[in-house]
Amino acid sequence: MNLMKVRQLFDYDTWTYTYLLWCDQTKKCAIIDSVLEQVDRDLDLIKKLNLDLEYIIETHVHADHITGASKIKLNTNAKIIYGSKTGVNGADIYLNDLDELNLGNQKIIAIHTPGHTEGCTSYYTLGYIFTGDTLFIGGTGRTDFQGGSSSDTYDSVTKKIFIYSDDTVIYPGHNYKGLTCSTILEEKKFNPNVGIHIAKDVFIENESKVERPYPKKFDIAVPANMVCGKNNI
Amino acid sequence: MNLMKVRQLFDYDTWTYTYLLWCDQTKKCAIIDSVLEQVDRDLDLIKKLNLDLEYIIETHVHADHITGASKIKLNTNAKIIYGSKTGVNGADIYLNDLDELNLGNQKIIAIHTPGHTEGCTSYYTLGYIFTGDTLFIGGTGRTDFQGGSSSDTYDSVTKKIFIYSDDTVIYPGHNYKGLTCSTILEEKKFNPNVGIHIAKDVFIENESKVERPYPKKFDIAVPANMVCGKNNI
Repeated sequence: MNLMKVRQLFDYDTWTYTYLLWCDQTKKCAIIDSVLEQVDRDLDLIKKLNLDLEYIIETHVHADHITGASKIKLNTNAKIIYGSKTGVNGADIYLNDLDELNLGNQKIIAIHTPGHTEGCTSYYTLGYIFTGDTLFIGGTGRTDFQGGSSSDTYDSVTKKIFIYSDDTVIYPGHNYKGLTCSTILEEKKFNPNVGIHIAKDVFIENESKVERPYPKKFDIAVPANMVCGKNNI
Repeated sequence: MNLMKVRQLFDYDTWTYTYLLWCDQTKKCAIIDSVLEQVDRDLDLIKKLNLDLEYIIETHVHADHITGASKIKLNTNAKIIYGSKTGVNGADIYLNDLDELNLGNQKIIAIHTPGHTEGCTSYYTLGYIFTGDTLFIGGTGRTDFQGGSSSDTYDSVTKKIFIYSDDTVIYPGHNYKGLTCSTILEEKKFNPNVGIHIAKDVFIENESKVERPYPKKFDIAVPANMVCGKNNI
């Protein structure tokens, strides 16, 4: 029985997944990738579940929504956590590759997984991995801004995410088809970008050809998120 | 360890949740409340997960989307399942209250939970209950058409759903706030419509005052779903 519990949340406007995870024995809780407009909903759920929010974790500096991190901190005094390569100002803890956080009786391992952005960090806890925009269900995050690198994405996914057990549940930062989660095995077998049947040079070549629109909220979201959303409370 | 696995799916246009559930030992699978436009996605996932689809289950005659039941049946030969009080034509199996289905080594129990519609059926399997539009997260389905009855909803929820253990996960047919699931305990404590702090006469009185818009797809979806979507393949 896994004593780390997870609750997935969805922001309809930006297709963003937010996650609550908590140690079921101690009720110590973390929130991953909150969305500013959903903070009231998320705080309400934390209260109903009688959880004690300890960490406000971000997988990266988002370009599509403003984080709710600072607003949540103001209401809870939980600590804001970012990867150490994000360049973000104002977080309470910056995690390096393979640093660990204790959440009650459970552990969360930070995994530096650059590629979508230079500072992208995935978070592993027994049974689950939260991959942000590094690894999607059947896809990978764009690599054309914020220090993105298709070479890094390939290495991050294949050398630092696919090493976990095949039945590890993948919880991504977004999905645009209504899929909610996946597993390491499924992405190894079927991910058309970085599955194990795809060579690194093929992925890099494919990625170089993809044209994507400029993110609608980029110019607002990135500066806001570089300071943990503190100017948007 | 629960050997019945669940994968939640979301239809963005109608805010509908579809569920795959399967016996992890035998890979026998059921799909609950499929959406016609998402059938290709769902069949693809069933194939990737190497599942053997046995049942196409509906919680009720939906008014907001057309079921993918017949299209899925055409592609898989799985059996279409409805509650016996739905009045639907063309299903393969009609379940009465507390009838059981074997899914591999696991069991699914049909629970007749009228209220939103006369034929609404919830499905319980160890650890989970799929409540369709009878019980929502923090709400209940409208009761103003299709044989709906607020008295029935109250009784269905409080006498036939709330009897399961407090940690049973509730998977509803919709949510409009980006919440994905709940538990019996949460709904008993916090559901503002039918939580255990709400008396039946109060719920009926409140429900009688709610004004809701006519469902956009009602005139198309209900006739289509009364024949399992067979004219929409």
